[in-house]
Amino acid sequence: MTEQLKLYGYWRSSAAYRVRIALNLKGLDYEDVPVDLIRDGGDQLRPGYETTHPQRLIPVLQHGHRMIRQSLAIIEYIDEIWSSPPLLPIEPRDRAHTRALALLVACDIHPLNNLRVMRYLEREFDVQQPARDAWMRHWIEDGFRAFEAMLVDDLARGTFCEGDTPGLADCCLIPQIYNARRFKVDMTPYPTIRAIEAECMALPAFDAARPENQPDAPSS
Amino acid sequence: MTEQLKLYGYWRSSAAYRVRIALNLKGLDYEDVPVDLIRDGGDQLRPGYETTHPQRLIPVLQHGHRMIRQSLAIIEYIDEIWSSPPLLPIEPRDRAHTRALALLVACDIHPLNNLRVMRYLEREFDVQQPARDAWMRHWIEDGFRAFEAMLVDDLARGTFCEGDTPGLADCCLIPQIYNARRFKVDMTPYPTIRAIEAECMALPAFDAARPENQPDAPSS
Repeated sequence: MTEQLKLYGYWRSSAAYRVRIALNLKGLDYEDVPVDLIRDGGDQLRPGYETTHPQRLIPVLQHGHRMIRQSLAIIEYIDEIWSSPPLLPIEPRDRAHTRALALLVACDIHPLNNLRVMRYLEREFDVQQPARDAWMRHWIEDGFRAFEAMLVDDLARGTFCEGDTPGLADCCLIPQIYNARRFKVDMTPYPTIRAIEAECMALPAFDAARPENQPDAPSS
Repeated sequence: MTEQLKLYGYWRSSAAYRVRIALNLKGLDYEDVPVDLIRDGGDQLRPGYETTHPQRLIPVLQHGHRMIRQSLAIIEYIDEIWSSPPLLPIEPRDRAHTRALALLVACDIHPLNNLRVMRYLEREFDVQQPARDAWMRHWIEDGFRAFEAMLVDDLARGTFCEGDTPGLADCCLIPQIYNARRFKVDMTPYPTIRAIEAECMALPAFDAARPENQPDAPSS
């Protein structure tokens, strides 16, 4: 597999952050293609971007000529093409648990807090910043409460979400924690999540993927 | 695999509907455990339900003693345990395309239209029914526009979302169409989606999974 990898992303997008972690865990080099979601209304809304992603979202992983969309589909693709180190366990029941944790973040927290949703709440319902922030925190806290419970219930859990190596669920959790801290969510009620965060952030793959370490992040 | 299968669901839940289709496509018998999301505020909010699903959502597939949560994780689990007929293609790039279509529905349409979100919009932002319905339609139409484009762009597409047999993406699309029709979305702009719908609904596996054919559906 010598075809070039390009990642269409944005430094602060948590969905792009997930994919950066996965690429780094696999030790894969990729070209960063910044899509500025904010400036002049957003690069993703410009004519032509729909051929890169018909949903006008990020991330997109370009592998050769192939465009792979949706962060979880991208991470599963990466895991299927480059098998080592694996990002999913071997046993179907453990894979299901890992995917359930990843989907909890990817379906039930993040989409509710996406930029396009915040813009709709403001534009159509006149919801102001403090109420939008409360909405954000509500879905994060609701999700983290369940995420924490699912970790605690898992008797086979290791130092990461699933076992003693980082994987798909960690790729989703860490960017969601970044968003939680950004919106001042009190992380005290989630000690297991915080312990996993500490393990992850000690690893270069996670550190290099941090928003602040991206080429398109503001320098200040 | 002789362990019993139980599906915690609700007749009109589109996430449960996805799993019913997958179980039917595999020809698997399962016991239906209705969770009434509406009556008296909802069975899912009762004390004790959090052990079945810490997020207080449905569906949950119980397989022996194992509780599998999140509809897409459940369908991937079913596909890994019972391999025939496969619900995902063989090639990683085709698998990624199928998963991207499934995630488009499962992440970017459905969670925004979930009951708990509708309740929040009404309770916290005083958004009334017509505006809530417009919100619903907005996310469905936004998603279907991209879904249709992704189908049209896929030169290898067959009669279903991916190839000539139904799979994961069809399991997600059909319940979302049911919701779209319920909320009076104009389906005219999506001819490819409608053609796939016609193929699917001609199959007993899809017909038996319809909300109206569930034991907990109202008789009238």
